[in-house]
Amino acid sequence: MALFAAIPGNPTTIGLKSPSRTPFGHLKLVTLNNIKATMNNIHKSHFPPLKLGEELVAMKAKKVLEALEEAIPLKHPEEIHKAMRYSVFSGGKRLRPTLCLASCELVGGDENSAMPTACAVEMVQAMSLILDDLPCMDDEDIRRGKPATHKVFGEETAILAASSLLSLSFQHIAERSIGVPLDRVVGAIVELGSAVGSLGVLGGELLDVHCEGKEVSMEELENICVAKSSKLLEASVVCGAIIGGGNEMEIQRLRKYARHLGLGCQILNDIQDIIMSTEELGRTAGKDLENDKATYTKFMGIEESKRFSQKLIGQAMEEIALFDASKAAPFTYWANYFLTELAY
Amino acid sequence: MALFAAIPGNPTTIGLKSPSRTPFGHLKLVTLNNIKATMNNIHKSHFPPLKLGEELVAMKAKKVLEALEEAIPLKHPEEIHKAMRYSVFSGGKRLRPTLCLASCELVGGDENSAMPTACAVEMVQAMSLILDDLPCMDDEDIRRGKPATHKVFGEETAILAASSLLSLSFQHIAERSIGVPLDRVVGAIVELGSAVGSLGVLGGELLDVHCEGKEVSMEELENICVAKSSKLLEASVVCGAIIGGGNEMEIQRLRKYARHLGLGCQILNDIQDIIMSTEELGRTAGKDLENDKATYTKFMGIEESKRFSQKLIGQAMEEIALFDASKAAPFTYWANYFLTELAY
Repeated sequence: MALFAAIPGNPTTIGLKSPSRTPFGHLKLVTLNNIKATMNNIHKSHFPPLKLGEELVAMKAKKVLEALEEAIPLKHPEEIHKAMRYSVFSGGKRLRPTLCLASCELVGGDENSAMPTACAVEMVQAMSLILDDLPCMDDEDIRRGKPATHKVFGEETAILAASSLLSLSFQHIAERSIGVPLDRVVGAIVELGSAVGSLGVLGGELLDVHCEGKEVSMEELENICVAKSSKLLEASVVCGAIIGGGNEMEIQRLRKYARHLGLGCQILNDIQDIIMSTEELGRTAGKDLENDKATYTKFMGIEESKRFSQKLIGQAMEEIALFDASKAAPFTYWANYFLTELAY
Repeated sequence: MALFAAIPGNPTTIGLKSPSRTPFGHLKLVTLNNIKATMNNIHKSHFPPLKLGEELVAMKAKKVLEALEEAIPLKHPEEIHKAMRYSVFSGGKRLRPTLCLASCELVGGDENSAMPTACAVEMVQAMSLILDDLPCMDDEDIRRGKPATHKVFGEETAILAASSLLSLSFQHIAERSIGVPLDRVVGAIVELGSAVGSLGVLGGELLDVHCEGKEVSMEELENICVAKSSKLLEASVVCGAIIGGGNEMEIQRLRKYARHLGLGCQILNDIQDIIMSTEELGRTAGKDLENDKATYTKFMGIEESKRFSQKLIGQAMEEIALFDASKAAPFTYWANYFLTELAY
């Protein structure tokens, strides 16, 4: 991995850690030494949907950033809005909002109608990362290579900004989903709420913190990982489909895609926490080991974890195989993106 | 005030601090020494709507507690649900949810249709108190005479429980407002979000913390107090009216009632922080002075603050004078309740 970390270059506007890890655009920075990017390109030249997926995801990510810019203006009181904006615009792959928009289109909707929901899931993601990093949680000083929100603004502002992002996420869906049938708007709010709350991200975070240093069963580990990681991805994809008017079968397939991909990504995170440097990770490496977290790598070792993650992402891809390949390109793209990460 | 604090008795199920301060029921505990309660009774015997208001509020508070019991069951993960329940069921006058239900009825709706919204505003209130008490905010160890949520469950659980209550509040309105036209459901979610977020309760809390030890103008003080205290009361009343199908004029009048009452109550809180004991308050007395908070008492002294608060509550009463007196009885009751508090 150190090979890629050594390549100079600025993070992109959509916040990936280095050019070698950029999933779309910026190919001018690819060098001969960048084996991973080269392999990615070879892969894409043999599989057109990946190239299309990359372009679609890049376009969607750009639109999401523009919409978030409008959704979180720098109003009075400035300090809280600065902290909200800092956490939302500090980078990130924009996996969840781009899949939310893609999901809406996949079931026949217009992606613009899902934009408020896409912004909302990214607000929730930012909220969860702010809380994650607090001293009483994972006590992490850096996030995406920058100081964590509470290190810049103080704990009180970080907590209030996180809560404000959470509140705004629901308000934004309700207020800005113009022209969307109201049963879909209400349905998306219910789905998001169930993914975020005590039975989702926040409950999962608590289990994660409370399981430090303890023995957990495979079932408990899966429950923790699904709650803290998969559920928001699942809600992102399902909410997009709800807003787009997807039917039960479509929603079910997309839910399964996200559930599998989300768990696969969490296992990838566990692996990267061990094998990558702090610079590559953008956060303190080895933190899971230091905190004696319940992780898949602790449970089954790195190699077995890799195989399990690959299997899950493969299962995710199966779920979208029946959809139109062009419209499903962003889904194929993201699955391939994480499989490529796993290959190194 | 010490006179009333000395009266023995348990807090009621709706969590008031002592029998003398109970706004409904439990009159068997009233003694000859309890001047305040006696005066209250004399007042009521000359003004029937106050007695009716007391009964209506007591009934509504009971129903709200039953609905909250159902809304926040003790599920897995237990620790987070225990913390959510601890904060929600630790007492409180239930001012906001009872006015939410009353508001729905006042504009011609069925109070049951506003019950999910009434529960939601009480969840938000509990959330704000959990955050308020955190070490990085007001650093308060006791709340309503009991250990603050973070003292019982730890900071991490308290913060995650607070966020879960906030998330659940929106989800609950969206999921449980059965039979309510969806434009009203969505309207209530927007109203609640705007009252809670960075421009409401949470932004106000930040200004409140950041103004400690600083000189603020009268206008800034009013902005802080309205944001941190009035806006949620306003949303409670307005959301009830939205769910009940109130017209613009009705909503405007109810908003003004709540805005004035909310600010009046905040000033009363400022006064009580100085003149009441920790036992009477149920939280550490003199905390505002200790933290050098921006308060009305600091700005204009106790007597002037009292007069200003009385004036505001009087203005609140004027706003509801044009409604049917029986249906408006809970509004009259609460205004009178706080005026009585101010008289001592």
